[in-house]
Amino acid sequence: MNQPASFPHYLQKRLPAIESALERVLPPPQAPPALLHQAMRYSVFAGGKRVRPALLLLAGETFGADASTLGEPAAALELIHTFSLIHDDLPALDDDDLRRGRPTLHKQYDEALAILAGDALLDLGLEVLARFPVDLAAERRLRNVVVVAQAVGSHGMIGGQVADLEAERTWPDDPAATLASIHQRKTGALLRAALVAGGVCAGAGEPELALLERLGDQVGMLFQIRDDILDIEGTSESLGKTAGKDQAADKLTYPRVYGLDGARQRLLETSLAAREAAARLPGGGTAFLSLVDFLVQRQS
Amino acid sequence: MNQPASFPHYLQKRLPAIESALERVLPPPQAPPALLHQAMRYSVFAGGKRVRPALLLLAGETFGADASTLGEPAAALELIHTFSLIHDDLPALDDDDLRRGRPTLHKQYDEALAILAGDALLDLGLEVLARFPVDLAAERRLRNVVVVAQAVGSHGMIGGQVADLEAERTWPDDPAATLASIHQRKTGALLRAALVAGGVCAGAGEPELALLERLGDQVGMLFQIRDDILDIEGTSESLGKTAGKDQAADKLTYPRVYGLDGARQRLLETSLAAREAAARLPGGGTAFLSLVDFLVQRQS
Repeated sequence: MNQPASFPHYLQKRLPAIESALERVLPPPQAPPALLHQAMRYSVFAGGKRVRPALLLLAGETFGADASTLGEPAAALELIHTFSLIHDDLPALDDDDLRRGRPTLHKQYDEALAILAGDALLDLGLEVLARFPVDLAAERRLRNVVVVAQAVGSHGMIGGQVADLEAERTWPDDPAATLASIHQRKTGALLRAALVAGGVCAGAGEPELALLERLGDQVGMLFQIRDDILDIEGTSESLGKTAGKDQAADKLTYPRVYGLDGARQRLLETSLAAREAAARLPGGGTAFLSLVDFLVQRQS
Repeated sequence: MNQPASFPHYLQKRLPAIESALERVLPPPQAPPALLHQAMRYSVFAGGKRVRPALLLLAGETFGADASTLGEPAAALELIHTFSLIHDDLPALDDDDLRRGRPTLHKQYDEALAILAGDALLDLGLEVLARFPVDLAAERRLRNVVVVAQAVGSHGMIGGQVADLEAERTWPDDPAATLASIHQRKTGALLRAALVAGGVCAGAGEPELALLERLGDQVGMLFQIRDDILDIEGTSESLGKTAGKDQAADKLTYPRVYGLDGARQRLLETSLAAREAAARLPGGGTAFLSLVDFLVQRQS
């Protein structure tokens, strides 16, 4: 593969393909029930950064897949990520009015439609993984369905969300361990699944998939620590969501547990470990090294 | 296969296998997050009739599969059915306090957990279909994931639910056509998918799968017409849910569109068409004939 100069550059180069894959896999806005399809599209095309699709493409290309075959599985990851945002924003959960600088789906439409559009996006995401890439061996497509479904499920993202809600009610006995365990599931699981699915699409073997899994854990941790720091350092305008919200709610975050400097220190340490793992990838993992830099430095 | 004397008898005979498959596919109640797993189990083990698993088994056995290999995919259908009940009962949707004679999940726990437990059950259901039966060709397991995901998605059950909510707000121009279209998706799609998935597990060919699809549509219509009639004729006690609710809400139902006698007439006509289709199945479709009788006569 071409070694991208930087992850933002790589993302920018792949963005048109990701957007057009999302267009292909989503039902047209006029298809009945139009209300539902428009709601699904409202949230999917709300200016997301497409990090998860890009991770799938990056892992796939690292192991030799042609990016042009990976559009649909990459889009599937974004559908599922969007489902999780829609449901997390609901009044019964995080009760957020603003997402990516626009009203959240239940604010723009209503709660019933937000629940159902989220359901439909999760369902469609798994269907797309079962169908694409069409030329990939059925065993491998099945593996992707299982990998991603497990990352989403009660031991993954959804389980992490429940644990997070529980931690909000009672401050845990071991905050550091609880924090790590929540975020490995809530944020980390789907990021890891994106990398593994890219490897699966590229025909990577078991040791390679295990390496992608380990890298995925580190990427997830980098992502979350930086997110928690940005909640303190950023503005609502730069983030496109309410800044300072975690802090106001006294949520279990890295700065809350380790202090702001301690969180920055953990970000640095994790980035070093991730760089070490990335160096073992084909081609010296150059693309992944730039991903690590991006995750450490991103401003939104 | 043994020709069961009646569908209730068949269901009763297969029930222990269905329940133990549900036990196997659901995480143990103590597994963290215990709260989530207990919530999932609360709704799954709430005394459901297990009609969808039984339909999968019935179709599978009709085409020669060994019922003992079909437990997990049958259970998957029930997980997904339970997801749809949990989300439909939410305050933002049907706002139901009672389901199968017990408090609905958001009443027993809270709304956040009901949303997330529903999500986790949909996700787990599709994962189970990707994994089981383990000896089934990967292509066929993929087919089941796609068949069921499409039955659930925005063109299926979820789409029907949105159309139903829309019809509640504005009485449709063509009530009869809207009613049929809503129920083909809202109730029919998953019942049809259960039959098709049973055929897929049994290695049935395309013409056989098409016949199961047609039968599935008829089964779905019989199910829904009888449901609508029971809402008027039944009591909350016999139904295990609030009786007369559709009528009170002036919902679009078969009795509302055709009158109670007209609805009974449609039930009869549909049952005759279904009997005709069933007769073309291997073994004269005896098992399906008893299913049709059950659907026409059921009291709850």
